[in-house]
Amino acid sequence: MDVYISGVGLTKFGKSKESLERIMAEAAGLALKEAQLEKVDAIFIGVMNVEEFVGNSNFATLLADTMGLTGIPSTRVETASSTGAGAFETGFYAVASGHMKNVLVLAGEKMTHLPTSKTTRILSEVIDRTERRYGATMPAFAAMIAQRYAQEYKLSSSKLEEILAQVAMKNHYNGSLNPYAQFRKPITREDYLGSQIISYPLRLYDCAPITDGAAALLLTSEPTSIKVTGIGHATDTLAVSHRASLTSFNSTKEAAKKAYRMAQLNPSEIHFAEVHDAFTPFEIIGTEDLGFFAPGEGWKALEEKVTHLQGRLPINPSGGLKSRGHPVGASGLAQLVEIVFQLRGEAGEGRQLEKAEVGLAQSIGGLGNNNFVIILERSDRKRRYVEGWRPAYQPEIKTGLRTNLPQPSEGVGTLETFTILHHPPEGFLSPIALGFITLQEGIRIMACNPEYKNPKSLKIGKKVLFNTREGLYVFRKITLWDRLKFWIKGELKSPRQR
Amino acid sequence: MDVYISGVGLTKFGKSKESLERIMAEAAGLALKEAQLEKVDAIFIGVMNVEEFVGNSNFATLLADTMGLTGIPSTRVETASSTGAGAFETGFYAVASGHMKNVLVLAGEKMTHLPTSKTTRILSEVIDRTERRYGATMPAFAAMIAQRYAQEYKLSSSKLEEILAQVAMKNHYNGSLNPYAQFRKPITREDYLGSQIISYPLRLYDCAPITDGAAALLLTSEPTSIKVTGIGHATDTLAVSHRASLTSFNSTKEAAKKAYRMAQLNPSEIHFAEVHDAFTPFEIIGTEDLGFFAPGEGWKALEEKVTHLQGRLPINPSGGLKSRGHPVGASGLAQLVEIVFQLRGEAGEGRQLEKAEVGLAQSIGGLGNNNFVIILERSDRKRRYVEGWRPAYQPEIKTGLRTNLPQPSEGVGTLETFTILHHPPEGFLSPIALGFITLQEGIRIMACNPEYKNPKSLKIGKKVLFNTREGLYVFRKITLWDRLKFWIKGELKSPRQR
Repeated sequence: MDVYISGVGLTKFGKSKESLERIMAEAAGLALKEAQLEKVDAIFIGVMNVEEFVGNSNFATLLADTMGLTGIPSTRVETASSTGAGAFETGFYAVASGHMKNVLVLAGEKMTHLPTSKTTRILSEVIDRTERRYGATMPAFAAMIAQRYAQEYKLSSSKLEEILAQVAMKNHYNGSLNPYAQFRKPITREDYLGSQIISYPLRLYDCAPITDGAAALLLTSEPTSIKVTGIGHATDTLAVSHRASLTSFNSTKEAAKKAYRMAQLNPSEIHFAEVHDAFTPFEIIGTEDLGFFAPGEGWKALEEKVTHLQGRLPINPSGGLKSRGHPVGASGLAQLVEIVFQLRGEAGEGRQLEKAEVGLAQSIGGLGNNNFVIILERSDRKRRYVEGWRPAYQPEIKTGLRTNLPQPSEGVGTLETFTILHHPPEGFLSPIALGFITLQEGIRIMACNPEYKNPKSLKIGKKVLFNTREGLYVFRKITLWDRLKFWIKGELKSPRQR
Repeated sequence: MDVYISGVGLTKFGKSKESLERIMAEAAGLALKEAQLEKVDAIFIGVMNVEEFVGNSNFATLLADTMGLTGIPSTRVETASSTGAGAFETGFYAVASGHMKNVLVLAGEKMTHLPTSKTTRILSEVIDRTERRYGATMPAFAAMIAQRYAQEYKLSSSKLEEILAQVAMKNHYNGSLNPYAQFRKPITREDYLGSQIISYPLRLYDCAPITDGAAALLLTSEPTSIKVTGIGHATDTLAVSHRASLTSFNSTKEAAKKAYRMAQLNPSEIHFAEVHDAFTPFEIIGTEDLGFFAPGEGWKALEEKVTHLQGRLPINPSGGLKSRGHPVGASGLAQLVEIVFQLRGEAGEGRQLEKAEVGLAQSIGGLGNNNFVIILERSDRKRRYVEGWRPAYQPEIKTGLRTNLPQPSEGVGTLETFTILHHPPEGFLSPIALGFITLQEGIRIMACNPEYKNPKSLKIGKKVLFNTREGLYVFRKITLWDRLKFWIKGELKSPRQR
């Protein structure tokens, strides 16, 4: 059964004094009013971690009760930071099955009431336990991914900084036009460069903020002006260190493949997209993973303003997670609400796109390991290529990293990427250098060093030494004395060899 | 699209030294092996509170990764203590929609590694916040419900004790025949009476234990020997004090109505059922809510052994949550695994029922506010009444309690039910008397008193005084001095009036 959207609702994102259930009820009320519905067949609630953010369990029931909808089924769905998209997917199947006619999808999160270090700790629980033990945070991984991207595509650190600044400036500009956005002021290059380093090279303006907010959307089997035409959902390894590629997300590619196939569309036919820019480098990588641009070329499209509001393929017309804000459970659904606004021509002056008949949303769960790609289209759109449709999108899924080999307790490896983390979760020292080290056997390990504070002292691609302290890998640069030792042991031909 | 079951798996319930992901992977492995599948289209994971029980978020990804199934969609679903059934429902719609062919539903929880008072606190987070502030726990509510049931149906406290003992003895006997059960020894009346009071009148043997365990089930669109024929899901108010009836659950009745209608069956056609006996009184109430017996008569059927293994309508042949154990996220799915065992004739000697072609499971989320009723049937069953089917099940949904009236800060009310709670969550005094008090206006309030230790000193139906201390209602019995005061104020005709 085909599935349509009959109403949407969004709260103003930002800091709220209201309880989470009231914020979510507000969004739901807007969507229900739009659809002229007072009753639905079921509710699917997306909240990421209400247990720790607000100290509640049984939240699906609480929500139904708060809204005066007691009686009907209410189910909570969670897929880490893509939770809003996860709730959408489960609601979609309920309607597509023919068992339900109208379903309310409702997603939200309340985060601003806690101290940042506690929020960081809660958010870090989405990270693999072995990696979390190093104090690794989401920004730290995003920073290591950005560093690796620059290395692979030969971008200098100042070039990388310029690209990331451009993502932030574009999205803050778009957000300045969005009445629902948390940040409504454009930022300058100076603002960007003046913001503090969170995890080198990422600054505060590279990271989506901590936000309260909610989004709601009504799915129906009755035709409306907006049709859901593609859904893809895919997972990747929980540990980032277990992935063959650090500069693209297999989970986005697999999800996109499914969504394009279901919609019988190709990337070139997408008019605009909301891309999960929890961190600025993720927008660049996202546009490559989605097949909009070739690997390593997403930043060029940005520089050429292809992804700007007036460009050929606007990315994050809403301002993205970066500027609209990122209530973790809500973002995946807020993206879809923005797409509906655009498809209906209701995005408002300045932000409304000229060509908006096919929109795509990409939502990332965790560190790129539970991702969604969802395509919405105007129902009145004339489609030309459905008969004999051929997929033009054939992404390279990179696998093959060996993760089952025994890991030595000490040795020499190559620094694959690193970051200097300045805002670790509560209970960790700051700053701390974190890195991935590739061993000769093709294994990758995570390692830390609390002594490196200056990123210039480390270089990707260089050999480093590592050993084990208190169950953690610690790495350090190879000194002249180390080289002398290796030369004496016959492991180097000359102490000058690197 | 019709939905069938192609494989099931269950771990031995009890205390486990393994991690939750390994326990769940074990159950999944058994189900996949049975179905001869190495790949599925998606996973739906049911875990209730992994955030606090095991300190992990992003658990759907972790599970897919642990099982080597990285790539495919993995979604976590939660509906409090009915979570296993919630995961089943979402998986059902995914297959019923035609978008997926084989779906793994996997549910589990790990609880035994924490101190009991912490586990109690985590479990109590499913309770309404205003009620939780009194230190109310799940056993405390179950105890108040049992007391009210006895009052409404005129059972003496010794009769109530006898009935609850019989539920416990029946289910422990059934569990003694179940190799997957946590408790495999029948218990005697003396064992029951010798067990400590958790929340008067409920003893340890009235409460399902704290358990580690997992269940798995494969749903498929390809016909197999077991068909899913009915699913119903319904919510009720989060606050128990907001309900018109304390001796039945609207959420079970609404869910049952939907499930019977979908399956085109009536209660008399069900051959056996797994009923959510987290607390012994819930089994009695469950069998009434499901339409098996009239309100107030469930205990008679138990006494007449109708619900025993050899009876006309065996209830909890598995031993129920009581004896198989209750890993909160897993129980709703474990019930369905038991039904599949019975329908296939694989339940094993002693436990296998003679007539087992139609089985029903009822799962309770929270304190009866997110409930499921699911019906499974043998595909080869000859059905006689489908044409012109008429629903014979017309449960009375009791509503109408006024919850929006202003609550006085002190006054006189009637003690509707009470318990003496001996095991409150961490941070509360013990023991503490908790009660519901009905005010003249028809409002009900919750109230406490830390001084009543002897249940004999309180009597349901008597007038009590209440006032407010530190934001909580405190109640106390009316003394002669109170009556004298009321008499002098003209509120009583005589100080002897009660």
